[in-house]
Amino acid sequence: MSTVDVKARKKALKKIERAFSKLVRDILSGKTPTLVIRKRTLANTIFDAERGLLRIGNATLKRSFLNAGEAKKFMQTVLIASIIHEALKNDEYPTIRDLYYRGKHTIRFRDLATGRIKEENTWDEQKESDSVIRDLEVLIDMLREEMLILSKEKGKVVGDMRIRSGDDIIDLSKMGHGAYSIEPTPDFIEFKDVNAEFVLVIEKDAVFQQLHRAGFWKKYKALLITSAGQPDRATRRFVRRLSDELGLPVYILTDADPYGWYIYSVFKVGSITLSYESERLATPSARFLGVSMIDIFGSSKLKKKPYLTEAERKNYIIKATETDIKRAKELKSYEWFRTKRWLEEINIFLQKKAKLEIEALTSKGLRFLMDTYIPEKIETGDWIA
Amino acid sequence: MSTVDVKARKKALKKIERAFSKLVRDILSGKTPTLVIRKRTLANTIFDAERGLLRIGNATLKRSFLNAGEAKKFMQTVLIASIIHEALKNDEYPTIRDLYYRGKHTIRFRDLATGRIKEENTWDEQKESDSVIRDLEVLIDMLREEMLILSKEKGKVVGDMRIRSGDDIIDLSKMGHGAYSIEPTPDFIEFKDVNAEFVLVIEKDAVFQQLHRAGFWKKYKALLITSAGQPDRATRRFVRRLSDELGLPVYILTDADPYGWYIYSVFKVGSITLSYESERLATPSARFLGVSMIDIFGSSKLKKKPYLTEAERKNYIIKATETDIKRAKELKSYEWFRTKRWLEEINIFLQKKAKLEIEALTSKGLRFLMDTYIPEKIETGDWIA
Repeated sequence: MSTVDVKARKKALKKIERAFSKLVRDILSGKTPTLVIRKRTLANTIFDAERGLLRIGNATLKRSFLNAGEAKKFMQTVLIASIIHEALKNDEYPTIRDLYYRGKHTIRFRDLATGRIKEENTWDEQKESDSVIRDLEVLIDMLREEMLILSKEKGKVVGDMRIRSGDDIIDLSKMGHGAYSIEPTPDFIEFKDVNAEFVLVIEKDAVFQQLHRAGFWKKYKALLITSAGQPDRATRRFVRRLSDELGLPVYILTDADPYGWYIYSVFKVGSITLSYESERLATPSARFLGVSMIDIFGSSKLKKKPYLTEAERKNYIIKATETDIKRAKELKSYEWFRTKRWLEEINIFLQKKAKLEIEALTSKGLRFLMDTYIPEKIETGDWIA
Repeated sequence: MSTVDVKARKKALKKIERAFSKLVRDILSGKTPTLVIRKRTLANTIFDAERGLLRIGNATLKRSFLNAGEAKKFMQTVLIASIIHEALKNDEYPTIRDLYYRGKHTIRFRDLATGRIKEENTWDEQKESDSVIRDLEVLIDMLREEMLILSKEKGKVVGDMRIRSGDDIIDLSKMGHGAYSIEPTPDFIEFKDVNAEFVLVIEKDAVFQQLHRAGFWKKYKALLITSAGQPDRATRRFVRRLSDELGLPVYILTDADPYGWYIYSVFKVGSITLSYESERLATPSARFLGVSMIDIFGSSKLKKKPYLTEAERKNYIIKATETDIKRAKELKSYEWFRTKRWLEEINIFLQKKAKLEIEALTSKGLRFLMDTYIPEKIETGDWIA
């Protein structure tokens, strides 16, 4: 086991013990054991405009052992904490799916009213155990990754940078045609040295492969990252740390459609349903590089010519679906999309009902994407904040 | 650009030129330009029992320029070849999606019968361009990756092995908590040296992360690979090369369900719809390590105790869906699943209508999976061929 993992286990154990020793004190002093946890409801999700990210508010909920309506959730929370505590002590690396299975069992008890034996499952579905894991994260103010809970991980990186992960030093500029697959616990990564001027996050793995292979990051001093679709927590945390600790500007390149905008939004302000993690995972300074609707259609108001000709538009544009349009209208209602430039972007989309994939640009030649589109947009500040 | 890419481009250019110079000769000698390509139909897909993989048969189809029914396909084939030829010359790395976009345009022509101007698209959907790319692969007997066509890539590897990829030497034992993400063109990888006794391919990325983090590959001298679900071509080719060139036994660990069996099947004999690639991508010697139905339920006939207790079965087993059952019956009809041991496996499934995830085993503790289940099954030869 790597030395960082040993240290991390100690820290997480201490945090769990500190939070739950309150219950012991409750019992010893004759009080009802009660947990007080900040609410993860939509109503307690705040867009913090100053910091530019979603965060959890201060409203709390109580879970009491001796309240019939709260007892099951109380038990589930204590159960998940004890399973995680044990896994930490035993040098294990459970996934959230494991935790679900480990905790899943049937409790038999005698119903006091009828005298009959009854059965009750600790939980029936993973969403129940996932929910209490999140409560635990909020309660002890620690991401599950810091408790050595692992997960599937899609993010990749290449660039002129050295990192320490576990007990190894890894040179991200020596990955050949492959890439470095980011670990599920990026908080434990140590940044050694970096020779890069910006971070380019690409939604699509295949486009990442192309730019990497063609030497984009070498030529333009970039750290090249792909989220391979909707970003996972580790990729978001990794990007946030590059922004915070190295002060590098972060540009995000997605398809020109509401799905791409949402990917950008998750990187930038966080995910709406999991606001408590955004304070650690969101990168408020992230910039939407493209592909923008103005890149496709131009703008007489902004005196900007489109990158596509009429013929290319005819060939490349895809008709928006009903879901796209619904999603766009939803995004329009979010506070962080209600800027002049974003409203313009969304309105062009709603008017034209058209979307475009990044690949439509690479089909003009990789040189176009690599040596014209991306560098030109960065240089002229042609991105959306 | 790496030196292997330069060499690969030359080779691919030569192959394309050789195949299509036939058309020029046809024209110069007054013949109708015609392409002859092996058929990729199900009827021309053969399970080669001796070699243990699916392959394409010898039936061919003709595509003639002067036949009204064949002209469009003829044109599409020549179009895709010319786009790929140009990309190779221009040092580009297109994806199949790019090729679709690059070739997509409208041809205007005068209808000889009516004298009217008509329009016809080269293609309307990517499946049309994908299909002619496959024809080209068959025609010139070359995988698209060898023509420097890139794609999304999910496979990861760690283990005590050094490889050369591009111009870099990569030590797969020094990836920290992350992993090496396999390149889209694994044929260009050079195996330098390896210190491993077997290859373990895991369906699930999260389980791969766990075993990696817990030091499985170090302790048991394994190369650890994940396909992250249904394997892509690069992961399959990489595994095949490890088997062929290093003579390492390959074990596959999936969920105990028809979906997991199919993943094993794709690794082992290839994919039914793309039989022509199996000769390069399939690993006929691959073994299904588990999780097997007998691991769950035991077998009095084989005198094998189950790994799960009655209580664990009750907690962990998932009820099979209608789709699972339909899929299982389908698999049962495939020649390579009609062995005694596989039929037994499928029949237990159909009788119990139960499936199990790998995570159900890790929930017994990572030590159980890592130090009991996997090594015991390998040691005692408790796998299915």
